[in-house]
Amino acid sequence: MEFLSEDLLLTSPLSRRLYQAYAKDMPIIDYHCHINPHDILKDKKFENITQLWLYGDHYKWRLMRNCGVEEKYITGDAGDFEKFEAFAKCLPRCIGNPIYIWCHMELKRYFGYDGEINGETARHIFDFTREKLALTEFSVRNIIRRSKVELICTTDDPADDLSAHIELAKEKDLGFKVLPSFRPDKAIHVEKKDFPEYVEKLAKTSQVVIDGVEALKEALSKRLDFFNRQGCKVSDHALDSYIYSECTCEEAEEIFRKAMARQPIDELEAEKFQTYMLLFFAAKYAEYGWGMQLHYNCLRNNNSVMFEKLGPDTGFDCINCSPSPAKLARLLDALYKEGKLPKTIVYSLDPNDDKMINTVINCFQGGATGKLQHGSAWWFNDTKGGMTAHLSTLAEYSVLGNFIGMLTDSRSFTSYIRHDYFRRLLCDFVANQVNSGEYPAGEASLKALIENICYYNVKNYLF
Amino acid sequence: MEFLSEDLLLTSPLSRRLYQAYAKDMPIIDYHCHINPHDILKDKKFENITQLWLYGDHYKWRLMRNCGVEEKYITGDAGDFEKFEAFAKCLPRCIGNPIYIWCHMELKRYFGYDGEINGETARHIFDFTREKLALTEFSVRNIIRRSKVELICTTDDPADDLSAHIELAKEKDLGFKVLPSFRPDKAIHVEKKDFPEYVEKLAKTSQVVIDGVEALKEALSKRLDFFNRQGCKVSDHALDSYIYSECTCEEAEEIFRKAMARQPIDELEAEKFQTYMLLFFAAKYAEYGWGMQLHYNCLRNNNSVMFEKLGPDTGFDCINCSPSPAKLARLLDALYKEGKLPKTIVYSLDPNDDKMINTVINCFQGGATGKLQHGSAWWFNDTKGGMTAHLSTLAEYSVLGNFIGMLTDSRSFTSYIRHDYFRRLLCDFVANQVNSGEYPAGEASLKALIENICYYNVKNYLF
Amino acid sequence: MEFLSEDLLLTSPLSRRLYQAYAKDMPIIDYHCHINPHDILKDKKFENITQLWLYGDHYKWRLMRNCGVEEKYITGDAGDFEKFEAFAKCLPRCIGNPIYIWCHMELKRYFGYDGEINGETARHIFDFTREKLALTEFSVRNIIRRSKVELICTTDDPADDLSAHIELAKEKDLGFKVLPSFRPDKAIHVEKKDFPEYVEKLAKTSQVVIDGVEALKEALSKRLDFFNRQGCKVSDHALDSYIYSECTCEEAEEIFRKAMARQPIDELEAEKFQTYMLLFFAAKYAEYGWGMQLHYNCLRNNNSVMFEKLGPDTGFDCINCSPSPAKLARLLDALYKEGKLPKTIVYSLDPNDDKMINTVINCFQGGATGKLQHGSAWWFNDTKGGMTAHLSTLAEYSVLGNFIGMLTDSRSFTSYIRHDYFRRLLCDFVANQVNSGEYPAGEASLKALIENICYYNVKNYLF
Repeated sequence: MEFLSEDLLLTSPLSRRLYQAYAKDMPIIDYHCHINPHDILKDKKFENITQLWLYGDHYKWRLMRNCGVEEKYITGDAGDFEKFEAFAKCLPRCIGNPIYIWCHMELKRYFGYDGEINGETARHIFDFTREKLALTEFSVRNIIRRSKVELICTTDDPADDLSAHIELAKEKDLGFKVLPSFRPDKAIHVEKKDFPEYVEKLAKTSQVVIDGVEALKEALSKRLDFFNRQGCKVSDHALDSYIYSECTCEEAEEIFRKAMARQPIDELEAEKFQTYMLLFFAAKYAEYGWGMQLHYNCLRNNNSVMFEKLGPDTGFDCINCSPSPAKLARLLDALYKEGKLPKTIVYSLDPNDDKMINTVINCFQGGATGKLQHGSAWWFNDTKGGMTAHLSTLAEYSVLGNFIGMLTDSRSFTSYIRHDYFRRLLCDFVANQVNSGEYPAGEASLKALIENICYYNVKNYLF
Repeated sequence: MEFLSEDLLLTSPLSRRLYQAYAKDMPIIDYHCHINPHDILKDKKFENITQLWLYGDHYKWRLMRNCGVEEKYITGDAGDFEKFEAFAKCLPRCIGNPIYIWCHMELKRYFGYDGEINGETARHIFDFTREKLALTEFSVRNIIRRSKVELICTTDDPADDLSAHIELAKEKDLGFKVLPSFRPDKAIHVEKKDFPEYVEKLAKTSQVVIDGVEALKEALSKRLDFFNRQGCKVSDHALDSYIYSECTCEEAEEIFRKAMARQPIDELEAEKFQTYMLLFFAAKYAEYGWGMQLHYNCLRNNNSVMFEKLGPDTGFDCINCSPSPAKLARLLDALYKEGKLPKTIVYSLDPNDDKMINTVINCFQGGATGKLQHGSAWWFNDTKGGMTAHLSTLAEYSVLGNFIGMLTDSRSFTSYIRHDYFRRLLCDFVANQVNSGEYPAGEASLKALIENICYYNVKNYLF
Repeated sequence: MEFLSEDLLLTSPLSRRLYQAYAKDMPIIDYHCHINPHDILKDKKFENITQLWLYGDHYKWRLMRNCGVEEKYITGDAGDFEKFEAFAKCLPRCIGNPIYIWCHMELKRYFGYDGEINGETARHIFDFTREKLALTEFSVRNIIRRSKVELICTTDDPADDLSAHIELAKEKDLGFKVLPSFRPDKAIHVEKKDFPEYVEKLAKTSQVVIDGVEALKEALSKRLDFFNRQGCKVSDHALDSYIYSECTCEEAEEIFRKAMARQPIDELEAEKFQTYMLLFFAAKYAEYGWGMQLHYNCLRNNNSVMFEKLGPDTGFDCINCSPSPAKLARLLDALYKEGKLPKTIVYSLDPNDDKMINTVINCFQGGATGKLQHGSAWWFNDTKGGMTAHLSTLAEYSVLGNFIGMLTDSRSFTSYIRHDYFRRLLCDFVANQVNSGEYPAGEASLKALIENICYYNVKNYLF
């Protein structure tokens, strides 16, 4: 197959046909990303490809550091072209890395450039894309429209005023929806140093005097209600490891007071408080009919020197390994028992957890189609191998046809290409089942399977 | 390849030839299943396919719950057709799930129906199979005979009277053998609430007054002897995690007394007692020449609400993750040192353990061909991907040619199809090695490899 | 494909072309093996294939034990032919095992024999290879030369006098280099019984009175300097599990004194002392510009009976499972913080760790191309599946083009064939990326990728 062929990843006539007929043109519902809604509000434009690709994408920074590029050209004060050139020089060594193929797919899809990115082509690409980026069709809103995005869920803190969302909701001709999602990590991680500051901020935003756990919950309830009124349909929690440790109201109160008094919180106390708050939030989500996303097993900020210099989310996180089916099961059981288990999407950054997760969540299904979901291959794992393994595990250990599909988890506006990448792998997976005689060739089921996983399942599930 | 083709899973001319010549017609030795021997004794017949497929198979129940089917149609009081229809409606979404392909293979092999199962065909299939099931050839014994089953090992508690086995042994024209296997979980799990009741039951059956650990062992010895006289050749242990903690006779005695007095048993005590009893049993198995099956890493009854309603084995179990090569090695070492290591078959429900298990057991080989075995892909893992990974791991980390092969682990009489499924994957694996130039095409070795893994290895190993 | 075809493992025209053009004839830098340098010094010859293959290779012993071969024919007093015959009889059952294909590749490459090894051919092969082994071209040095080996790093203890290396360095026409590598396991594992004896030995060699930790470090510093003057470029550490526990000088001193007084060292003390020494060594390596190899997760000498009889490294080791990204990260962070992180190559015997390792080490990259490496698939994992998974993980989670490639980790002189095996898999991996349209077909990048991974990367990295 030619490089970047139209048939990329589609290894049989059937997979090509399925992709063209049922996947390619389906709208995108991107229910989890890190796009800044203010960029959409002001319909931001980018001066050059470095701003588009390299200003915030720490996946790319890691590749550059691996190639020995000086930090100056990564997050430092080198010029935009120099930074792009340094990146372009690294790419040929990144054979098989998703960044390699995504970058090329983005250039082809959005800019019509189908050549190779390397040190020699860097100048040409930089100049060529700069001209394009000046065009109206490259404003943020137009990129979104051209990508057939129907709905975007951003990632927002409970204390956020959602001003961008409020403004965007008023626009009649936007052509797509932008909803907030609720990510209350700071309200849960009582062990973090800035917890008291956060509580103060939350008190201000919610206009509740937070003098204890009950008041904290009241303040958060107000924010939940506010988010709900803004159309929020999904929440998100980042958890280093699987947690579950029973915690009484009195214990939660005591831990809260210690944290507010800046006394150290030990591991068990942190786990107890997190459990307590997670159960509180989950019950609320169930009430509102929201989906709850649980992201497990990410260990953050491992390089203390670079954390000092650059802060979080700069390329110094890793997979954590702490599989704990019992804790996951007990959390879900505690909610199920009270009739307060919301729609739940479980992710782990450790791909070794994938089979386990499917078997745990399937102990708590019922009441809705695919009520508990194993979220799509995440972060380091959204590679060809990772996505394929995820689809195959879902099929073998659960029900693939109920899957709510792909998301971008991205900070970039051209990364909708990942949905295309996912859809190709999906079509190839389904076609392989038919080609090997394991699934019948009936058009209606094939159409339903693919359209559902690309679009309808998540639409019905969350919106 | 056509759906359900004769060549299903056989991807090359060589694999087709090997399957037809050496695999397809080999007898089946099903050395581990959960069939009720009384059903065989009375030569049970099924009124309809719901009774055959859905009355006890909690694998299928999980799929239905995942698809949002109400419990009424799963384990509740809906009619048999309604239940089957609900199941049939779910299947098209289960692409790639072993249930999907097995159901279709069973309908084709036993009923001659090679269409698709879905909501629209449900009525026809239900009626059609009901007629068939009324025929003599669909009695339990005839299904077994038609499946070329030579021997079945059921799963039996030490306190069981084996009455069905005793009666079946008298029948001259049965055409196959039914042997008990010894599963003394209840005698080991001292931490369970019903341990005292179980000891009482065992006392009655064995006519031994069980007033301490020595008496417990005496009672169990009598049962071991009874099982052995009934032709038992294999035992089975279910273990949540890998266990090994040294335990003196005095400690065992003390823990036993606490349990009988209904005092709580902590985790360490439980592990000690389990270790103590496991070493006792293993030495006995070595003496009798039995095989010992160790099933690790299953976490059971995670949904407390459903456990209250439906009891165990109803679809609420999951993979546990607690790899502990050191504990497995110390258990085997303790037995090896005393010259009391029986033939041992190790399984883990966590497929991440597979490579580790092979490297641990190969530290204790010797004295017989493949004396320690890595048991076939188990429960959630007996999928195409799981079985293929298991075969490949066995080949790369151990000696595939010594493998004792597949079992059904099933509660259903038509699930012998899983042996056919396994044999196809095996032939394809072997053929791929030849096709890629990694193994020579000599007919004698290929015949021996396949016939041994399908049949002769387990026959020589256990019987 | 024919058995042992020239195109073995090369599944497309492109992969064949890449292999022939860029991989096949590249020199070998074997930067990690267990060859005895004295064998090279005296240019050892082997009387027969049993001496070459079976005298020290415990991988092969494990297969034989799995096949029920008596220990007499493995490590006992049976004759050399009987031993080889016993081994040959096992091989046909070892389909898919790397030993199977490597043995056949070695016979073909070095002896020109391309038939099958089995019980029937054993006599012929034994006699035929005995004649060959008597020829000059089968002396150890000539095997190395015929294998295009440019450089060998042996594995040496700090207390070793490196006499063979010193002599070899004087030889002008050797045609290849032999360098020591520094493996100070005995100086780190304070919890081992023979630690005091080792300290004594080290004191003698280094002529330092070792009366405390400072003196221990002084003695080791002298040995480091000695090794460095002998051209050493790489060190190696064997670690049962991931370790990191902060340890003050005072604590280290106290633990050292306890060990020297033969008092028991508990797990935490052992971990503290190991951490302390590892940080000391790592800083030294950084100073000298050496590479540091960390081999994690091997559990040794599991069979106590056989350990008594045969000692270590006789086939009784296994994979350990103790993933601990946090400990690995903290070790690297402690060094990074001080500017003392050396080039580091991390291996784990547990293949489940592979993805995690890549994400951890990439938090500490910078300053050199691929400064931190995920070492090649190791020991039990250097199989076709293991190597392929390793390459694929490197590509997807890191930068494949920066990989320093394969090593033999071997005790045998004909096992350079493993480099050939690896190179075939590498060419096939790269070709597959091109064939699937995921990487462009530009000749220059393909040439660079393959030549770099086969040879230039490791040359630039270490030498």
